Amino acid sequence: MNPTDAIGYLAAILTTASFVPQALHIWRTRDARAISLGMYSVFSTGVALWLAYGVLVGSWPVTLANVVTLFFALSILCMKIRYDRERRERRK
Amino acid sequence: MNPTDAIGYLAAILTTASFVPQALHIWRTRDARAISLGMYSVFSTGVALWLAYGVLVGSWPVTLANVVTLFFALSILCMKIRYDRERRERRK
Repeated sequence: MNPTDAIGYLAAILTTASFVPQALHIWRTRDARAISLGMYSVFSTGVALWLAYGVLVGSWPVTLANVVTLFFALSILCMKIRYDRERRERRK
Repeated sequence: MNPTDAIGYLAAILTTASFVPQALHIWRTRDARAISLGMYSVFSTGVALWLAYGVLVGSWPVTLANVVTLFFALSILCMKIRYDRERRERRK
C-alpha cells in the first residue's frame, strides 16, 4: 500500500471509530442534552447517502465505513430522542 | 453531472454541514456535558488526515469538505474543554 492510501485508510478508521466513545458516553450517563438533534438527523441522512454512493461506485471501503458509521449515528439519534423524552416526563 | 456523483456531493454537503447545528447548540447552551471528548479528539485527528489525503491526491472536494469539518470539529472540542472546566470551577 502506498503512503497516501495508508493515510486515507487511517483517516476512515478514525472518523468511523470516533462515534463509538460518543455512543458509549450517552449510554452510560443517559444524558443527551448537549447533543444536537439537527446534527444527527442531517448527519445520518448524509451517511446513508455516502453508503448509497459506496454501493453505486462499487467501493467496499466507502460502503463498509458508512454501514458502521450509520449504525452508531442512528444509535446516538435514538438515544437523544429517548433520553430527552424521559427527562421531560420526569420533570412533569 | 451523473446521478452517482450528485449523490456523493449531496452526501459530502450534508455530513459537513451537520456539524454547524451541533456547534451552535453547544455555543447557545454553554453545556457540553453529553459531548464525548474522546469522540472529538479522535474525529478531529481523522478529519485532519482526510484533509492531508485530499491534498495528496489533489482532490478539491475532499480537501474543502475537510477544511470546513475540521474547523467545526475543533470548535466543538475547544467548547467541550472550556465549558466543562467552567462548570467544574463553578461547583467548587
